[in-house]
Amino acid sequence: MKFEDNFLIWNKLTKSQQDRLSATVICRKVKKGTIVHNGSMTCLGLLLVESGQFRAYIYSEEGREVTIYRLFEMDICIFSASCVMQNIQFDITIEAEKDSVVWIIPPNVLKEIMEESAPMANYMNQIMAGRLSEVMWLMEQIMWKSFDKRLAAFLLEESKVEDSLVLKITHEKIANHLGTAREVVTRMLRYFQNEDMIRLTRGTVEIIDRKRLEELD
Amino acid sequence: MKFEDNFLIWNKLTKSQQDRLSATVICRKVKKGTIVHNGSMTCLGLLLVESGQFRAYIYSEEGREVTIYRLFEMDICIFSASCVMQNIQFDITIEAEKDSVVWIIPPNVLKEIMEESAPMANYMNQIMAGRLSEVMWLMEQIMWKSFDKRLAAFLLEESKVEDSLVLKITHEKIANHLGTAREVVTRMLRYFQNEDMIRLTRGTVEIIDRKRLEELD
Repeated sequence: MKFEDNFLIWNKLTKSQQDRLSATVICRKVKKGTIVHNGSMTCLGLLLVESGQFRAYIYSEEGREVTIYRLFEMDICIFSASCVMQNIQFDITIEAEKDSVVWIIPPNVLKEIMEESAPMANYMNQIMAGRLSEVMWLMEQIMWKSFDKRLAAFLLEESKVEDSLVLKITHEKIANHLGTAREVVTRMLRYFQNEDMIRLTRGTVEIIDRKRLEELD
Repeated sequence: MKFEDNFLIWNKLTKSQQDRLSATVICRKVKKGTIVHNGSMTCLGLLLVESGQFRAYIYSEEGREVTIYRLFEMDICIFSASCVMQNIQFDITIEAEKDSVVWIIPPNVLKEIMEESAPMANYMNQIMAGRLSEVMWLMEQIMWKSFDKRLAAFLLEESKVEDSLVLKITHEKIANHLGTAREVVTRMLRYFQNEDMIRLTRGTVEIIDRKRLEELD
């Protein structure tokens, strides 16, 4: 796979910009569990996911986490290049959830091309607007949706991402995605189990009544 | 006041772009309480606040509100031009909190100039990143900060904005800013009053111990 086949606005860049990108873009394998970006790390650059999966999350002083968005194939992460973006004033952590392969545009090259190319700047704009929309959606969920609905939605989403009804995930991990405590997750999962919507075993959650979970969501 | 004196990147635009802006930008007075943008209204355009104050908020089906950010003098609102921005998939309502004067760049002119001007596109980028940072900050507050701290922070912020220790604001309005129910606000305000941090009268909240509120925050 070549970078230019994955980078949607390749054809809107000038020859000189394309050449600079080709000369500097890096392809890197990332092991599952690797943190590729957080507030205290040096600025990595723009990340384009060729294969694999990443999770972007924030955490509190007490160590509670909440997933803000995820990155799948062809997705772009701009916050790993936050040094280039003015006015980004929050820390986000980006971690590989699966063994992944990414393309990286170094920060200085990204900055240079954004400054001279309106298509590139507008593309970054579009990606940022997409992230902002995800954050706004999440905010509405947290503000106004009860926890049973959020948990049902999460299990259905995971099932879609993993293409399986059996999810290998701990209660702790679910809590970290949803920004709550493990006990709260365990209690609600047990309720779902009592209602025959799911079956719990050590380390897995099996969806047995997808329809009722969907009705909850 | 002229538009160009308020628009920070004026000098980075070409003569032709400046001319198009000068020919199309509109100056409009907006009465306190006017809703200038929401999901179902036609696309207004980019808003530059010359004087006054606006509030951007979202609301739930049940009518609960939460303030996402505010706009003061010289601030720019891009979501009132969301038709021009790709990937903006949320509804936000923007309401004048005071009698205000705004400049409006029509959507088609904004789109045209963004498409040809990297400085303009990057400026929009910068504004969007600022808003995103505010939303992330708010998310952290809602997720991890207890309500007494959020309320104390809100009262102090209001006092700063209004430059007064006596705030003319109802419990209902405070609830709408903070995304909670009126009863929750009333209960916490009474607690603050019992602790001699504030004094309540009909329609006002008076800060009498700013230092202790600051310690809470």
